[in-house]
Amino acid sequence: MKLAVIPGDGIGVEVTAEALKVLDALVPGVEKTEYDLGARRYLRNGETLTDSDIASLKEHDVILLGAIGDPRSVPAGVLERGMLLPLRFALDHHVNLRPSKLYPGSATPLKNPGEIDFVVVREGTEGLYTGNGGAIRVGTPHEMGTETSVNTRYGVERVVRDAFARAAARRGKLTLVHKTNVLVNAGGLWQRTVDEVAPEFSDVEVDYCHIDAATIYMVTDPARFDVIVTDNLFGDIITDLAAAVTGGIGTAASGNIDASGTNPSMFEPVHGSAPDIAGQGKADPTAAILSVALLLRHVGKTAEADRVEAAVEADLGSRGEAPVVTSEVGDRIVAAL
Amino acid sequence: MKLAVIPGDGIGVEVTAEALKVLDALVPGVEKTEYDLGARRYLRNGETLTDSDIASLKEHDVILLGAIGDPRSVPAGVLERGMLLPLRFALDHHVNLRPSKLYPGSATPLKNPGEIDFVVVREGTEGLYTGNGGAIRVGTPHEMGTETSVNTRYGVERVVRDAFARAAARRGKLTLVHKTNVLVNAGGLWQRTVDEVAPEFSDVEVDYCHIDAATIYMVTDPARFDVIVTDNLFGDIITDLAAAVTGGIGTAASGNIDASGTNPSMFEPVHGSAPDIAGQGKADPTAAILSVALLLRHVGKTAEADRVEAAVEADLGSRGEAPVVTSEVGDRIVAAL
Ligand SMILES: CC(C)[C@H](C(=O)O)[C@@H](O)C(=O)O
Ligand SMILES: CC(C)[C@H](C(=O)O)[C@@H](O)C(=O)O
Repeated sequence: MKLAVIPGDGIGVEVTAEALKVLDALVPGVEKTEYDLGARRYLRNGETLTDSDIASLKEHDVILLGAIGDPRSVPAGVLERGMLLPLRFALDHHVNLRPSKLYPGSATPLKNPGEIDFVVVREGTEGLYTGNGGAIRVGTPHEMGTETSVNTRYGVERVVRDAFARAAARRGKLTLVHKTNVLVNAGGLWQRTVDEVAPEFSDVEVDYCHIDAATIYMVTDPARFDVIVTDNLFGDIITDLAAAVTGGIGTAASGNIDASGTNPSMFEPVHGSAPDIAGQGKADPTAAILSVALLLRHVGKTAEADRVEAAVEADLGSRGEAPVVTSEVGDRIVAAL
Repeated sequence: MKLAVIPGDGIGVEVTAEALKVLDALVPGVEKTEYDLGARRYLRNGETLTDSDIASLKEHDVILLGAIGDPRSVPAGVLERGMLLPLRFALDHHVNLRPSKLYPGSATPLKNPGEIDFVVVREGTEGLYTGNGGAIRVGTPHEMGTETSVNTRYGVERVVRDAFARAAARRGKLTLVHKTNVLVNAGGLWQRTVDEVAPEFSDVEVDYCHIDAATIYMVTDPARFDVIVTDNLFGDIITDLAAAVTGGIGTAASGNIDASGTNPSMFEPVHGSAPDIAGQGKADPTAAILSVALLLRHVGKTAEADRVEAAVEADLGSRGEAPVVTSEVGDRIVAAL
């Protein structure tokens, strides 16, 4: 396995080290290449993501990313639009996979959370993220700015199929989240695609809810969800809320997957670089370690993925109130494997 | 005061009756015209909203709406796109005002809600709600569908000013919610408009958060919000979530306001027509009654609005676990005025 590692900035570096500890303990001999991408490189030489970075990343089987960004020194949007999003497009990461599970001991803000265990399949290469928009008369009283959501049958169908397959392998329930009553063109395409693929997965029950109603269910009845499939922006919103109801982004892992296998998929914690706590050894590496589990499952190492998840679950259940020490979490999980 | 009343469908009719009880008790002699709009009329003659409906509604000072729709017999989207949204555009309801308050006794799903008391100023006539989009090759493997968010300085500035004024009259904090790191054209316009209007309201502290992060704060720290200003779609999403964290849409009121005063503004509960419980006298009319309070405040009857809100607050605090009886709630609130 050839692994590209992008530790990134802030706590990204710290949590990646722990994630690699866990990976090394389970799969010896992984060939790793480290990439210097993120705020530090941008501040040094103005580069965000070059063509040669992309070409070189493509020569790997899989990518592990820590976290990118430094809001104190890099203007908002520069690394998002210069690196994170271009990478998703260049590597055709159309399945943005975000599992949400309430682990024992996690600090959910909900009074009665129930059993939360679902995955969101967020489309990653279309919608409002395509940079299709423009502005005229900027800075004048007549300024006009647009953003266009682009949706293709090709792009929608591949994530819908992926989501159906995941639902069939889980509890057999798929929920489309959209806003079909207002966004008729995009919504119609999504709804029809789901309806047309459904007969191929006759064991999967199909449900629909508007994005506004979905946020209500997320706090009143999150146990109703098994697999959610949705577009790029709705997926962005609902997965942050999902992370919050399962106790925060400290345990939220994600995969940016090219389901065709043409390009390497990338796994990363949902959290950011958290410069406020960087360098203090107190970031929780759990989300990065769970990203390794997703990575292992993606490359077919199911037993190893199960072991990581079981070790994480046990660790979260036994932590109590003691403050997190980054390296100790990694050590404990390695010991528990 | 000339009031147009649109009871609508399902529980809309029942809660409107209670709302009018409260209005009549406080402001005698309101001249009311009832409008037959919604699912019943559509099913009878196929009409959703005619030009003459609009012309006639415009001759009123203010509008009270119950709820529209019957998902059992009217296809999703027909009344939304045929009546609710056209009304917002025809009457230039650019300020979609949605207060969220955690009343004593409300069933919040949050463990530690804190003191929730904020208002969302949602833009109501632009963004992704303008019907700007299209589709080609519909129903083929090459289908492509778009939705375009339209944002103008004129349209943004008037709601930003309205939101600043509301913040200045409340706790002095305004939070812009958007997704400026991805939606650069729309986001840039919103952010610059806020920055440029801010010096006129030097007592108002200005904050920004991405829509995804805003959903996290909504469940972990909703007390941080005072006034939120945001676009049409983000406002749709965040206000449903806000209603959920304050105990459900049973108490969520809203105003569709033409802040210029050219057209009548419209007040309505956020909830729908709930056909499952319609006709049983068990719908909670509180949101409709609180919509009357918003209406009264809008027409300058501040003391009357305060009395309604105080009576509602007392009623919610003293209800206990007894099931709601629609007419009794109205009677109790009238008695408590
Ligand atoms: C950083 C940002 C561009 C990104 C997104 O909006 O996709 C983030 O919020 C995420 O969810 O991965
Ligand atoms: C019914 C629908 C068109 C509407 C909206 O999306 O604005 C509703 O959700 C609302 O929030 O008033």
